[in-house]
Amino acid sequence: MATPLLFSAFVMNTASHILHGVWRQPDGHQINFNSLDLWVDLAKELEAGLFDAIFFADVTGLYSKYKGSHRKHIEMGLQIPSNDPSVILSALAYNTEHLGLALTSNIMQEHPFNFARKMSTLDHASNGRIAWNIVTNPLTNAAHNFGQDLTPHDERYEWASEYVDVAYKLWEGSWDDGALLQDRKSGISGDYDKIHRINHVGERYSVEGPHLVSPSPQRTPLLFQAGSSEAGMNFAAANAEAQFLVVPRPEIAASVIETTRNLLPKYGRSREDIKFFQGLSFMVGSTEAEAARKSNELDEAIDLPAMMAHLGGGIEELDAYDLDQPLADIKTEGIRSILDWVQASVKGRKATVRDFAIRSGRSGRVTGTPEQIADRLEIWQAAGIDGINVINATIPGSYTEFITHVMPELQKRGLAKREYTPGTLRHKLFGRDTLSDTHPAAAYRGAFR
Amino acid sequence: MATPLLFSAFVMNTASHILHGVWRQPDGHQINFNSLDLWVDLAKELEAGLFDAIFFADVTGLYSKYKGSHRKHIEMGLQIPSNDPSVILSALAYNTEHLGLALTSNIMQEHPFNFARKMSTLDHASNGRIAWNIVTNPLTNAAHNFGQDLTPHDERYEWASEYVDVAYKLWEGSWDDGALLQDRKSGISGDYDKIHRINHVGERYSVEGPHLVSPSPQRTPLLFQAGSSEAGMNFAAANAEAQFLVVPRPEIAASVIETTRNLLPKYGRSREDIKFFQGLSFMVGSTEAEAARKSNELDEAIDLPAMMAHLGGGIEELDAYDLDQPLADIKTEGIRSILDWVQASVKGRKATVRDFAIRSGRSGRVTGTPEQIADRLEIWQAAGIDGINVINATIPGSYTEFITHVMPELQKRGLAKREYTPGTLRHKLFGRDTLSDTHPAAAYRGAFR
Repeated sequence: MATPLLFSAFVMNTASHILHGVWRQPDGHQINFNSLDLWVDLAKELEAGLFDAIFFADVTGLYSKYKGSHRKHIEMGLQIPSNDPSVILSALAYNTEHLGLALTSNIMQEHPFNFARKMSTLDHASNGRIAWNIVTNPLTNAAHNFGQDLTPHDERYEWASEYVDVAYKLWEGSWDDGALLQDRKSGISGDYDKIHRINHVGERYSVEGPHLVSPSPQRTPLLFQAGSSEAGMNFAAANAEAQFLVVPRPEIAASVIETTRNLLPKYGRSREDIKFFQGLSFMVGSTEAEAARKSNELDEAIDLPAMMAHLGGGIEELDAYDLDQPLADIKTEGIRSILDWVQASVKGRKATVRDFAIRSGRSGRVTGTPEQIADRLEIWQAAGIDGINVINATIPGSYTEFITHVMPELQKRGLAKREYTPGTLRHKLFGRDTLSDTHPAAAYRGAFR
Repeated sequence: MATPLLFSAFVMNTASHILHGVWRQPDGHQINFNSLDLWVDLAKELEAGLFDAIFFADVTGLYSKYKGSHRKHIEMGLQIPSNDPSVILSALAYNTEHLGLALTSNIMQEHPFNFARKMSTLDHASNGRIAWNIVTNPLTNAAHNFGQDLTPHDERYEWASEYVDVAYKLWEGSWDDGALLQDRKSGISGDYDKIHRINHVGERYSVEGPHLVSPSPQRTPLLFQAGSSEAGMNFAAANAEAQFLVVPRPEIAASVIETTRNLLPKYGRSREDIKFFQGLSFMVGSTEAEAARKSNELDEAIDLPAMMAHLGGGIEELDAYDLDQPLADIKTEGIRSILDWVQASVKGRKATVRDFAIRSGRSGRVTGTPEQIADRLEIWQAAGIDGINVINATIPGSYTEFITHVMPELQKRGLAKREYTPGTLRHKLFGRDTLSDTHPAAAYRGAFR
């Protein structure tokens, strides 16, 4: 029997996360993201469908300008408005029992003392189901919202290393096991000798402590990371328990996974200490033709300039191009292989920027019958992928379809579980509640006695 | 008929908030503060009992040392462990319809851009029931947790003025009314000409904007404040819509209220623009004797050294004294009138520090039959008090008792309402959803066009 894959729902507290323009569809209920009902109902549905987690992306500013302004972003709702994901999670926690609750928070947006306290509070409130997607901020406008210039890429990872260090000290080292007594008879709430200041003094932070929150079920939340640069992969190898990939093909995933696993021993960790999640969206039909038709309808619904504005968020040069310009006008070397792939995919004519935008909308889309989709997921699994981060076109529709039509086929093949195992999120993934002893954060256990 | 008073429940996400030692009692369910159930169940009970709000206090560090260390704080659980209140509110919002949700957040702990986004998200999630208790940080350990020295008192209020200014710009000025369209037909999500950068540049903050969240039902959350110094009263007069007092007698409340109301015109506001809440706890009995007996039992349950450690948080000198020392040893001039009152209250002998601690535990306690308590609240109301912030000994017991025994008598006299009025928290208190036009923040409406 196959090993079951893990499944998380990749969402954002906004109406237009990845597939822009689709909020206009009648079943695009994501426009109701201001309401708790949308998210609580989705969380309940995901849990009934045996998803492992709901995973909230986030940014704290606008992507780079498109043709000189943010007009397109605002008109298309390209991640604006967007709401804070962290403060809605307790409503989801209260209404579910097993679903993991993953949130993205960048190291610029909150001081690590406050952040660590927030995450510990949420981990208590959810009985140990919180995950943190560790990111740095890549957006100039977001930096300007926090009174900063954009920090250069590699320097952001040095910053992140200190940030997680502060958090690890608070989560793992400030309170020993057994420090919280709450002994009504003796009247002793906490054991003074087991609660410690951390006295962190570093490049950017000085934090005295102690941590204000008693140890939560997982102590450190489950750690996600998504960096693909050299600095990012090293950061993941040092810190992550789950790595989020969005690569075009299984063989690229296999290569990234191998590279990352090979880096783990350098940080004293085991090759098996990271689970890899690939981002995919699904268009399912009862026949191949029906799936293809629905996929084409989705192509029509996607707003191409908004896709380019979003792509331009990471690759500023793309903002300048019109959709009807030849693709060959784009000279950005960093994406040469993608551009070549786009040109190869349009046979017998010169590709345009429009072709690029269309294909970016199709990126990671798996189209077919439940059987065809299951076949495809077997290939991803064979490449080393442990879990799928399911991208949506509509909420809740994309998840309803996946759960109703694809999950049963996956369960039949053993590619999806039939019931939850009890316990914390980390326990479900790794069989233990707290970080592995080989994780660098474990060095802070008992370090401040 | 009398005007109904407003009622909020004064709590903290910790086991030992104000009346220390009482968590040891069998009905002190506040030791379960890590669990959402305690808070959701309390919120439902408060709403069934027609309370207007639940009001979370908070600090981000330990109070000043007591006899040279934090041993007493930790052993008695004096606000440690304590959890972040902001991230549990959505669970409360989801399970209630009318109850206001007030949270304390100090200006040091979070950058105003992130904070404003969080509060807007919560105001959406609760359909306009969020209030913010604006505080500065008075604790040295908290400052050290954020890499800072303690900011001098008056300078903290200058800092607070810039902090609220940034938040007001984001809440009131960044998005015009009607900016969010979400028009499926035209495909336009937001009106570019109605969404603005704020470009704030000040002493401590530079914030570009735009605000990432669309206008929430109240835009700016209902604003609470509790300052009693001259700087604090001026800050309240400029900003607060509700002022939280903890004064020993109604006539002192009357004087503070008069002074604050007289300051309002200086800031362009009307004398009626602030509601005043007094903090009181209640010990109710079916006879006066029963109430007195229960009150004495509570005295016995209170941990006096912990009370002194807490008092010492604001007045460091108190840490040095033993409970059996003569009260006359305390020379702190700032509390001379309180010390004199303690001496006067123990007849025929020299008062000790213990007497001071006992009386601090009784501070604001109203003991009696429901009729006697209602009589007392009439006197507070006659002094100008609009609402009562109900301090608890036990959760939920103190609120259960108040709702079961006192509320009916108050309703009979017209001192408590018999049903909620619909709408946002601000609408319930002031008859409008957004800030008054006379509030300084209103000046930012349309200011960034």
